[in-house]
Amino acid sequence: MENLLSSPKPIITLLTDFGSQDYFAAAMKGVILSINPAAQIVDITHEIARQDIHAAAFNLLATYKDFPANTIHVAVVDPGVGSIRQAVLIECAEQFFVGPDNGIFSWVCQREGNYHAIHLTNEKFFRHPVSATFHGRDIFAPVAAALSNGVAPEELGPSIENLIHLDSLRPKILSDGVIEASIIHIDRFGNCITNLTREILDDDLSHTTLVANGREITSFRKYFAEPAAEEQEVFCVIGSAGFLEIVAANCSAAAILNVRRGQTFSLISNQV
Amino acid sequence: MENLLSSPKPIITLLTDFGSQDYFAAAMKGVILSINPAAQIVDITHEIARQDIHAAAFNLLATYKDFPANTIHVAVVDPGVGSIRQAVLIECAEQFFVGPDNGIFSWVCQREGNYHAIHLTNEKFFRHPVSATFHGRDIFAPVAAALSNGVAPEELGPSIENLIHLDSLRPKILSDGVIEASIIHIDRFGNCITNLTREILDDDLSHTTLVANGREITSFRKYFAEPAAEEQEVFCVIGSAGFLEIVAANCSAAAILNVRRGQTFSLISNQV
Amino acid sequence: MENLLSSPKPIITLLTDFGSQDYFAAAMKGVILSINPAAQIVDITHEIARQDIHAAAFNLLATYKDFPANTIHVAVVDPGVGSIRQAVLIECAEQFFVGPDNGIFSWVCQREGNYHAIHLTNEKFFRHPVSATFHGRDIFAPVAAALSNGVAPEELGPSIENLIHLDSLRPKILSDGVIEASIIHIDRFGNCITNLTREILDDDLSHTTLVANGREITSFRKYFAEPAAEEQEVFCVIGSAGFLEIVAANCSAAAILNVRRGQTFSLISNQV
Repeated sequence: MENLLSSPKPIITLLTDFGSQDYFAAAMKGVILSINPAAQIVDITHEIARQDIHAAAFNLLATYKDFPANTIHVAVVDPGVGSIRQAVLIECAEQFFVGPDNGIFSWVCQREGNYHAIHLTNEKFFRHPVSATFHGRDIFAPVAAALSNGVAPEELGPSIENLIHLDSLRPKILSDGVIEASIIHIDRFGNCITNLTREILDDDLSHTTLVANGREITSFRKYFAEPAAEEQEVFCVIGSAGFLEIVAANCSAAAILNVRRGQTFSLISNQV
Repeated sequence: MENLLSSPKPIITLLTDFGSQDYFAAAMKGVILSINPAAQIVDITHEIARQDIHAAAFNLLATYKDFPANTIHVAVVDPGVGSIRQAVLIECAEQFFVGPDNGIFSWVCQREGNYHAIHLTNEKFFRHPVSATFHGRDIFAPVAAALSNGVAPEELGPSIENLIHLDSLRPKILSDGVIEASIIHIDRFGNCITNLTREILDDDLSHTTLVANGREITSFRKYFAEPAAEEQEVFCVIGSAGFLEIVAANCSAAAILNVRRGQTFSLISNQV
Repeated sequence: MENLLSSPKPIITLLTDFGSQDYFAAAMKGVILSINPAAQIVDITHEIARQDIHAAAFNLLATYKDFPANTIHVAVVDPGVGSIRQAVLIECAEQFFVGPDNGIFSWVCQREGNYHAIHLTNEKFFRHPVSATFHGRDIFAPVAAALSNGVAPEELGPSIENLIHLDSLRPKILSDGVIEASIIHIDRFGNCITNLTREILDDDLSHTTLVANGREITSFRKYFAEPAAEEQEVFCVIGSAGFLEIVAANCSAAAILNVRRGQTFSLISNQV
């Protein structure tokens, strides 16, 4: 693992389910700035639905590549706080990820393939006393700040393998040109983000059919704004996170299809 | 157009309708900081109602003057993303405005009178690939960051005239001391912000009547907190954005008067 | 009062009830950065319920200690804006607090004991014209920025005594081992934060009973996550703000007990 070059203005992002009404995110910022006054803190969001690790994992996956090398991402959606779940630092894609080992970083790791994890055990870098309920402030924020000050990852704890993983980002390629894919996120407009990327899709989708919950979708469009043939037509576009999305003009595709996150569907290539 | 002096810590503000739940605003910040790590990003708001260009224009109008010279304002409420609407940079009031040409900056331009616009065509300064749905991340954020790095506006594209304009900020002065004014914004408390400013109003309003939807208002007060004579009394104050507001103590003036944004009303001076 | 050493990157926090939809918080930031471009602004929250001074006081109390010395906290929950309430600067705990004198800082002052207050009267440091409705932008933000630039507190106005105080943070110790305590905050999950701290509590609480609204609670736990004996069991934990909290697993303790903020209850030690 490379050491973090001590940057003049290191970036630390925060991604939590703490909401914006309370002092929780601010406490993390105060702790960070007390340890490294030069840190530049960027909120990704604090509005992840409570304890929704998948939504946190998706939002991080959708944006980490927009940040420069050496950015430190602190993600705290942590239903197991105070229990035996591990606190981890992961180095991946020339960036750092700090938070609970509950799968929140696993989609980044899966996509990148190559990563290195540390079990955060060195209490010297924690805020004391460590509360039972707020490791965001007491463990993850101070560890991120220490890292941004140039502390070597090796000082923070031992290397570990076998992290917790969420379900796979990789679609299964079956026989006969059929791909079994899944819905990894449903956004607040009911758009269904799938685990299909441009790389895996044919350039020409005019002979492709997507089958979800028994319903066939054959419309693959370039823009949301292209006119829909009929009211409530469901179609597919490549969304801004780089994944194929199943959407419906001005209404919820998830509701129309009656699908949920994690659900699988088929993509069938009918080239003759 | 003056070049932006390369400031040690240039300010870039963000004003969008992206909400706070998703990674969208953070993606813009990541892109900006990747291009100019010294940029200082200030959120104006990400909670503009979806596709409400007028509300975005009003909020920008109400606060741009509080920022120092050379501030770069990025405003993305962009129903036409992916269509033929132009991406623009406007220099006005010694500040810069970057976003879609849909009227979002037109009230600032109208008030200031003097401005210069550039059509953003130089793809060298875009993030690639440019998505069809997220120009905030792929065009506006990287262009703003380039500008903050000292890139000259002329490098970003050709000058243009004939921007899109929202309805006028300027009340019409009719004969007989009558002014035809309009409601440019209704805030979440139902206060109706008008396009009347202190400069256009008489110092002495004791003989003035405001007529909206057939209802006469003759009470012009200095403070919200001055006691209202009766429950649900509607009265006028100069609000903090510098405009005359039609308000009602602890309730919605918009509901009482049954008015909407864009609606006109009369101000009649009865001096004898 | 010590002068603020002119820090290279002074921290100014903001805590308001302005919400996130409008330009209000951004206007304060613009004013601050116009006066001190090096200021580092941290939002504590802008989502305090409207005019809820107690909730603002609690959130500030829960997090100010996480910030470094010389941090300037600007808190604006200000139902009396435009009236005769005083604008104040308080130095306390090696930090600065700027806002209305309505009790918003009184819990910090009560806990710390030692503080010094200034009445902000020097209009030279205000933004002009001073509006009747937005002192956050016109008085508190520019004064905080001046302070962060190294202006001495003495230049801002005369010292004053006799600030407005909220109800006491200190529980009353009665005869017979009974403590009369109170609920100082109810969070959005219905957890009741009390004014009891670890210091005042016995190490061994196995013979202690908390009596609130006639209901007896004898369960004092270390973690939220410890299994509750029965559905809707109400129990106590030391929360992350350092106070004893009355909570219920996955439901609202406040609803179960039918208690409100400010309500008192008893803690009875039954040691034989």
